[in-house]
Amino acid sequence: MSLDATLTHIDAALPEATERLLELMRIQSISTDPAFKADCDRAADWMVADLQSIGFDVQKRPTPGHPMVVGHAGPADGAPHLLFYGHYDVQPVDPLHLWDRDPFDATVESTPTGEVIRGRGAADDKGQLMTFVEALRAWKSVNGEFPCRITVFLEGEEESGSPSLVPFMEENADELRADFAMICDTVMFQSRTPAITTMLRGLLGEELTIKAASKDLHSGMFGGISINPIRVLSRIIASLHDDTGRITVPGFYDGVPDLPDDLEAQWQGLNFDHAGFLNEVGLSHPAGEQDRTPLEMIWSRPTCEVNGIGGGYQGDGFKTVIPAEASAKISFRLVGDQDPHAIRQSFRAMVEEMLPPDCEAVWSAHGASRASGAATDDPAFAAALKALSEEWQIPAAYIGCGGSIPIAGHFANILDTPPMLIGFGKDDDQIHSPNEKYDMQSFHKGIRSWARILDAVS
Amino acid sequence: MSLDATLTHIDAALPEATERLLELMRIQSISTDPAFKADCDRAADWMVADLQSIGFDVQKRPTPGHPMVVGHAGPADGAPHLLFYGHYDVQPVDPLHLWDRDPFDATVESTPTGEVIRGRGAADDKGQLMTFVEALRAWKSVNGEFPCRITVFLEGEEESGSPSLVPFMEENADELRADFAMICDTVMFQSRTPAITTMLRGLLGEELTIKAASKDLHSGMFGGISINPIRVLSRIIASLHDDTGRITVPGFYDGVPDLPDDLEAQWQGLNFDHAGFLNEVGLSHPAGEQDRTPLEMIWSRPTCEVNGIGGGYQGDGFKTVIPAEASAKISFRLVGDQDPHAIRQSFRAMVEEMLPPDCEAVWSAHGASRASGAATDDPAFAAALKALSEEWQIPAAYIGCGGSIPIAGHFANILDTPPMLIGFGKDDDQIHSPNEKYDMQSFHKGIRSWARILDAVS
Repeated sequence: MSLDATLTHIDAALPEATERLLELMRIQSISTDPAFKADCDRAADWMVADLQSIGFDVQKRPTPGHPMVVGHAGPADGAPHLLFYGHYDVQPVDPLHLWDRDPFDATVESTPTGEVIRGRGAADDKGQLMTFVEALRAWKSVNGEFPCRITVFLEGEEESGSPSLVPFMEENADELRADFAMICDTVMFQSRTPAITTMLRGLLGEELTIKAASKDLHSGMFGGISINPIRVLSRIIASLHDDTGRITVPGFYDGVPDLPDDLEAQWQGLNFDHAGFLNEVGLSHPAGEQDRTPLEMIWSRPTCEVNGIGGGYQGDGFKTVIPAEASAKISFRLVGDQDPHAIRQSFRAMVEEMLPPDCEAVWSAHGASRASGAATDDPAFAAALKALSEEWQIPAAYIGCGGSIPIAGHFANILDTPPMLIGFGKDDDQIHSPNEKYDMQSFHKGIRSWARILDAVS
Repeated sequence: MSLDATLTHIDAALPEATERLLELMRIQSISTDPAFKADCDRAADWMVADLQSIGFDVQKRPTPGHPMVVGHAGPADGAPHLLFYGHYDVQPVDPLHLWDRDPFDATVESTPTGEVIRGRGAADDKGQLMTFVEALRAWKSVNGEFPCRITVFLEGEEESGSPSLVPFMEENADELRADFAMICDTVMFQSRTPAITTMLRGLLGEELTIKAASKDLHSGMFGGISINPIRVLSRIIASLHDDTGRITVPGFYDGVPDLPDDLEAQWQGLNFDHAGFLNEVGLSHPAGEQDRTPLEMIWSRPTCEVNGIGGGYQGDGFKTVIPAEASAKISFRLVGDQDPHAIRQSFRAMVEEMLPPDCEAVWSAHGASRASGAATDDPAFAAALKALSEEWQIPAAYIGCGGSIPIAGHFANILDTPPMLIGFGKDDDQIHSPNEKYDMQSFHKGIRSWARILDAVS
């Protein structure tokens, strides 16, 4: 098996690979809009045909929603078993008038910073999923066979909440379980550093309603003597952090790990431009725990945020009311081994403890997922990191992700398959927005990256 | 002049007085709905004719809205000059299906607790204004002349915000200025104790918006590093009261008087059933300054309330957003000589001082009125109080009102005429609601009360 020959083949075949991607992008596979159901089906058929053409045993598999595409190739006992995940559906295109061209008339454009592939789905996720498909095609073409057992698993509902994903995984667990799930749907760190996302925060959501009087009261007649649930709620929210930004819920930090020294060193090497990151949205000051670095604040430290609050009169003008109730939606981002259920209990107990007379707390639970992380001590991770570094000529890094990527958790929890999140998107790709694009560099070097990773891991 | 003869006349003429009130109540003078413009006009005409019939020089006076009715009687130099205020317009009647009978088919009903006059406007304010009209009629009938100079001043826009009132007062200040403005539009204390309302709280309104990021942020990507305006706003609100319920705005208590000993004694005599007052709305615990009595909390102490709060996602379910801004509507009830403008400045300065980096406070001012009070050292107040006590055989009291009654302030500020608020409504009169009523006792003893007050004050 010759990696160099495969890379050379990839370079030579880039025009044909690009044409294939443009063809796939022209299929209007908007999963959330029933009007495009047949288009989603066509996109699945296109993927089946394309994977068949490079030797996959592949099928379109029905679900109550849009179909899955599952294909297998390589020796059945060829270790390791690598599963590649992507999604063939795309976001809606509204508002259409903000696009500079038809979002489904995909094309390559020259720009001052290089060529880009323009159109809906370019980066999310058709361009990304075709990086591994093209790498597999090139590998097969040059070497005649795959280096290990390969499964390709594509869904068509990622942009509409993946309603069929968990049941499908559960029903087909034996078929889909692999040594690693290569998920290609993420970005490079600050658009320049290749990275494997190994830390994903969990999420715990709570809706809290403070109830006081049995009806809204007039603040003239009742102001001063009766308890105001907005004030009670504000006091609770204000108490959730101390002056250093630390969260005060008892036991909250149980299971929060220290940042390992090697990761700390790697993150320092990333030279995160937190000023630029914040300036982009009109901010300048890292507002989290004051003894933590900005990257820790967004990746490796837990948070408590209020996502919504409401109570009393919110219309124009003024109404002198003391409302009967006030509500807030409060979420916690979790890391390490933090236990969402224990934190929910402790949080609720803390709030109940703070309630003044005549007040009641009514709770509504919204989701409780643990943080997920990859056990990077498996040599495959180091091998993939090295392959990425060699392709991009920049030291690749293990990074975190402040948000939650449910699919990663599903692979870990349902299939016991460690997720390896590697993607080549950039921050300015305009995913979910008008004029979505994918850099030709991302596509080309993305394909080459997967070839190197295949070579390194197998 | 014989008070006893006048009272006897009132008792005998009650059936005719009741018929007149029912006739007035059958006019559908809903001021807020343009469909009833002609009805409002008819009600004004009715009042003009009725006052003419008892010797008033009276006119319907045009305004840009519904007309005023202004009538004069008695010796032009006959001290004191008493002005009587009421309003002939009524609230809308929706929801109509909750009425037990046609709201404008006014009638007298027998109930287990006595006769009531039923229909829209019974208590608010046609029944109340007719108490003084009938007292004047009886006085004239028995004595042949009025005891002093009398002005009757009725408006037809009280239930729609009184848009013409201030301009009309300003344009006709010389004509309307009097020694006292007798305002008959309030209730008896806890439905049993006759009272003169001598303390009305002022009101200062502020709308505060905390702005942070330039757009809503994803709490996964930005949670932990970026400032959350809901948290900032909650911290501000939580800091507005200390643990004893005292308001922390610097200088806030400047001008707040101590409760005079005689008033304190009078209020203790009222045996305010604060438990009942709070139980009615599902509460039990007086939540204001902990070293004050419940009546002080609602009448003579200033307050700070949050009337509304909003920010972030408030719909069903959950959205992991850190909003760009959050807002609250905050109001202060003011007493004594508190200066709303000084408090506004101090409040804003206190908030600006608390703002963390990256946050901005945007202000919108909503009204600033001082407290108004009657200078009860004028002997007319003591005389009126005594007259009320004699009629009801219960010691009458000077009471406060937690809310603001703008008309009282207008008489004081525009006409330099001290308001004397005396009314005979009860808490269960259902004003503004279906099945409004006015107790026959309120009507009968109200007429008699005014006869006694006329006798005592003139």
